[in-house]
Amino acid sequence: GKVGHEEVKVRIAYCGVGGLDPYIITSEIPLGTPWRLGYQASGVIEELDKAATARGLKVGDRVALDQHRFCGSCYNCMHDRQNFCEDSSNSFQDAMMAEYNIIPQRQVWKIPDSISLEEATLTENVGAAMPAIELAPFKIGDSFMLLGAGTCGLLILQLAKLHGATKITVVEPVEAKRKLALKFGADYVIDPKNQDVIKEAMRLTSNRGYDRVIEGSGDSKMFPLCIEMLAQCGRIVVYSIYPEHPTFNIDMDKLFFKEAGIQAVFGQPNLFPRAVDILPKLDLKSMLGPVYPLERWKDAIEAHKTMEYARVLVKCT
Amino acid sequence: GKVGHEEVKVRIAYCGVGGLDPYIITSEIPLGTPWRLGYQASGVIEELDKAATARGLKVGDRVALDQHRFCGSCYNCMHDRQNFCEDSSNSFQDAMMAEYNIIPQRQVWKIPDSISLEEATLTENVGAAMPAIELAPFKIGDSFMLLGAGTCGLLILQLAKLHGATKITVVEPVEAKRKLALKFGADYVIDPKNQDVIKEAMRLTSNRGYDRVIEGSGDSKMFPLCIEMLAQCGRIVVYSIYPEHPTFNIDMDKLFFKEAGIQAVFGQPNLFPRAVDILPKLDLKSMLGPVYPLERWKDAIEAHKTMEYARVLVKCT
Amino acid sequence: GKVGHEEVKVRIAYCGVGGLDPYIITSEIPLGTPWRLGYQASGVIEELDKAATARGLKVGDRVALDQHRFCGSCYNCMHDRQNFCEDSSNSFQDAMMAEYNIIPQRQVWKIPDSISLEEATLTENVGAAMPAIELAPFKIGDSFMLLGAGTCGLLILQLAKLHGATKITVVEPVEAKRKLALKFGADYVIDPKNQDVIKEAMRLTSNRGYDRVIEGSGDSKMFPLCIEMLAQCGRIVVYSIYPEHPTFNIDMDKLFFKEAGIQAVFGQPNLFPRAVDILPKLDLKSMLGPVYPLERWKDAIEAHKTMEYARVLVKCT
Amino acid sequence: GKVGHEEVKVRIAYCGVGGLDPYIITSEIPLGTPWRLGYQASGVIEELDKAATARGLKVGDRVALDQHRFCGSCYNCMHDRQNFCEDSSNSFQDAMMAEYNIIPQRQVWKIPDSISLEEATLTENVGAAMPAIELAPFKIGDSFMLLGAGTCGLLILQLAKLHGATKITVVEPVEAKRKLALKFGADYVIDPKNQDVIKEAMRLTSNRGYDRVIEGSGDSKMFPLCIEMLAQCGRIVVYSIYPEHPTFNIDMDKLFFKEAGIQAVFGQPNLFPRAVDILPKLDLKSMLGPVYPLERWKDAIEAHKTMEYARVLVKCT
Repeated sequence: GKVGHEEVKVRIAYCGVGGLDPYIITSEIPLGTPWRLGYQASGVIEELDKAATARGLKVGDRVALDQHRFCGSCYNCMHDRQNFCEDSSNSFQDAMMAEYNIIPQRQVWKIPDSISLEEATLTENVGAAMPAIELAPFKIGDSFMLLGAGTCGLLILQLAKLHGATKITVVEPVEAKRKLALKFGADYVIDPKNQDVIKEAMRLTSNRGYDRVIEGSGDSKMFPLCIEMLAQCGRIVVYSIYPEHPTFNIDMDKLFFKEAGIQAVFGQPNLFPRAVDILPKLDLKSMLGPVYPLERWKDAIEAHKTMEYARVLVKCT
Repeated sequence: GKVGHEEVKVRIAYCGVGGLDPYIITSEIPLGTPWRLGYQASGVIEELDKAATARGLKVGDRVALDQHRFCGSCYNCMHDRQNFCEDSSNSFQDAMMAEYNIIPQRQVWKIPDSISLEEATLTENVGAAMPAIELAPFKIGDSFMLLGAGTCGLLILQLAKLHGATKITVVEPVEAKRKLALKFGADYVIDPKNQDVIKEAMRLTSNRGYDRVIEGSGDSKMFPLCIEMLAQCGRIVVYSIYPEHPTFNIDMDKLFFKEAGIQAVFGQPNLFPRAVDILPKLDLKSMLGPVYPLERWKDAIEAHKTMEYARVLVKCT
Repeated sequence: GKVGHEEVKVRIAYCGVGGLDPYIITSEIPLGTPWRLGYQASGVIEELDKAATARGLKVGDRVALDQHRFCGSCYNCMHDRQNFCEDSSNSFQDAMMAEYNIIPQRQVWKIPDSISLEEATLTENVGAAMPAIELAPFKIGDSFMLLGAGTCGLLILQLAKLHGATKITVVEPVEAKRKLALKFGADYVIDPKNQDVIKEAMRLTSNRGYDRVIEGSGDSKMFPLCIEMLAQCGRIVVYSIYPEHPTFNIDMDKLFFKEAGIQAVFGQPNLFPRAVDILPKLDLKSMLGPVYPLERWKDAIEAHKTMEYARVLVKCT
Repeated sequence: GKVGHEEVKVRIAYCGVGGLDPYIITSEIPLGTPWRLGYQASGVIEELDKAATARGLKVGDRVALDQHRFCGSCYNCMHDRQNFCEDSSNSFQDAMMAEYNIIPQRQVWKIPDSISLEEATLTENVGAAMPAIELAPFKIGDSFMLLGAGTCGLLILQLAKLHGATKITVVEPVEAKRKLALKFGADYVIDPKNQDVIKEAMRLTSNRGYDRVIEGSGDSKMFPLCIEMLAQCGRIVVYSIYPEHPTFNIDMDKLFFKEAGIQAVFGQPNLFPRAVDILPKLDLKSMLGPVYPLERWKDAIEAHKTMEYARVLVKCT
């Protein structure tokens, strides 16, 4: 392919398997070919359009790729919520589980020297985790419970630690992920299969509950626990989307007498620049799991679906 | 009575009938005597302890009385949420539907010259309305729907108008209150008995819904409408407490795809000083309803319970 | 001219004379021709490119025009400060003191039915005034002093009133503008030529000073007064740019013992959509001054330079 | 001494030498006796008044002491700025460089088990550092420069690291403190005696400057550098008080074209509870320096004045 106006050609090094990728190859998001897969990639610039000069990118730069496109003209884009861009043609246009990508310069970000190309595939995940923190938000000293230590959960954990959270408690059924959580700064971990989550939570907080609870498990049975474990003036951030389209029942008295808040997270615009900046402050290396060659992308997706790994990679070139 | 350390003796001029007063004389909050009633009073200082010098109060000052007491030492008080003071002896200690009150200087606030003693009984209500605004919070241009135009609702409306809200829409079944709402700055009113609330709401907002929805009707059937009428990235503020202790069902897909927030309001500390400051910017005079002499306090409470008046007053001296 | 991709052709109705226009025709910003003048215009859509569909614009729509362009790809644009776009070719590209403009749909905003085309020329000014408020920012009850009641000053005043400001005090030497200030909600006005500003300020605030002071006079002699008149924990917003490139001396003890803040305002991105929404809440009609036909644009600029009018208009078609 | 109403008797274990202590024994704050010294102490509860029940304190609890008293009734206290309490009798009432203190329960805070009594003397400093962070405030990814790595500076550094700061750069002339800064998470250190601070700063930030600059050096020659090294939309936090009562000259063009903010820090109310909570997330142990017995308190103060140590301790019992 040839680079168009303000476009950049990137040789993809690695692409992570993201949470949406399995849905892309099923009937749920019907795109069909492997070349439409992948939205968490890193690589090296091979060619630039001569108009792609906005941020000093140059051939040879090691970069992470941002898959978010938006029209910039619709009502939502003009109200600073480009994540709700009304031009639906902008979603998942760039298939990054591939050898090459040609994409607008706006979506190409140079990574710090200290970050490997494997680690850089997590830039999208870091950006996706940031709104959970910013919509919480944290005050110095806020106690914090996280439900679910998946890829984004583990990054939310690391970011929460970078926001003055205390009594950091992670609820996660997979032992390997609980160990990672402790490594990344959790003060306590709870195994929901073998421990009474609420009882432990109340014990750890002297019966006050947590100032901030982030539900990132994707397990809809967990949501009712959140309000139980919430402290007065606390806030629950719902980071998950639940495949079973559940309805949650909220006891309004509890909401009132705790002056509780509940906040969903869909996304936020322009997260990549700041995600790139914060990469060196995170332990991404410990998250890396198995690596598959591009032709074995199906195996990579299967490995991801076991939920055993914080990051499964496809080596694209 | 004699003034104690840092105390002030106030001859009560007027006391409003507040939303909690009817419950105080029933078995629900069993205090029993008329002298324990009343928490929205104004009056004139008759005597001060010589140590009551913190804010220059003096005999003859026209004042509004703040009924909030807190211990100042417990976990919640020290975390800046004195509204959740853990010393329960502090609630409703001061009975203001009476001829006199002797109370700590901290609870006595001089009112501006332009505010009448009748209007000043609404200071407590203004303070109670403020957290609904501050927990919303509003950006310039946010569209706004209010459900319920009771005493606090009408003050929330006035304060929302003072925060850059647009497309201000009030849902209220009582015609007199809808008229007051229009007088106080509502752009539109909806009669939920004769109009399809959601249909009107979507028409008025070009199908976008409202950026901020405050549920202050106390009618639990209204809550499910809130999320329907909410715009993307919107926030619902639940200002009501519902006597029937309801459970609300929330469709998590709607919460997610709107990136919605839900925030309950219980109260906030130290609202009186700022409530006093904002009094001259509000139309309180138009809210004043019938006035009863102190000996007819029971009739005043009955008048209040008709829900026809934005403010029923008891003339105490 | 023909409309290009996503462009809109607008017949200009009116263009206001803006603060920068006089500089455009002098050597200071050397553009030279009248057709490059004007950045505060309203008009009616005559033609749209078939791709200009993002926000439902159509032929005949009454619109206000946004002169802000930005590249969307540079470091500042991607960090949500498009007002600091690094592509300098984007400044003042659209000359609106003209019969027609062909501009991108992103810069074209339909105005509410209740707003006249004359009033709509103030949309840009409203957008320019908003950051002064949002960078202050105001809490309910904050006392407020404004220095300078020019076009943007009078809009800042109206917006501050819409943010719960109290004891609103305006310092302005021109009597007609002081009268407008009172009409728009100022509680007090001060004539700096005949009154002692600090003495009056301290008297009006019981010697506490103002919680928020916005310096919008463009008179560098005024700045030293700001810190004198500031309350504890107060903030000064510097809205002016001073032609004489002054240096201000700040007494660090005063800054410290007041825990003061000083904030400059340059601009903010994407202000137009919200400015359009808030138009119906402002009194723009009272600001309108003389109207000149397009061929007398030079006289319009001279009229503006007298500083007697809140808004001088050029009727373009 | 006997405990009065709601008071607690604490046997002091350690008291740190604080920045104000040297001034207390000179004519500058004329208190005169060693027993009025000290405001950063830890100890063990020996006795409690029977009314001192607000937070479950009991004999034997290891505690940190908060020296902040406030009246709770004055204008500032009621406006949530108890740090500006107008009752001056409340300052430095508790002399903590002593064997015992009898103080109100509100000022006594149980410390976590993992914190030693030596480390706990830094609780006051942590509380003092917090407003510098909260008044900045930080967004994820903000680049950060700190001038001055004294006791509070090193804690500001640790807290900034806990707030998503990047490119953390510390300017400090003392080598031992630069080493501590690197240990505590600084990415870069600059020696202002042997390096060109501005040149280094611009090199490290690719000529963009820092998003947040905290001036905590107390060296008034440093302030003019702050605005030079500030990024667009950046904020300078002035944490120091300068003994020479300097006046700073600010180039208004630079302020404007950077849309810069300048914020002084005096203090904030109720910092102790959250400071206690965050203690386990900080490296306090590495800050501890020499320990002197109580009778050698003068030597302790001399040691502190050498500025070689991050923390000099007096062992009180």
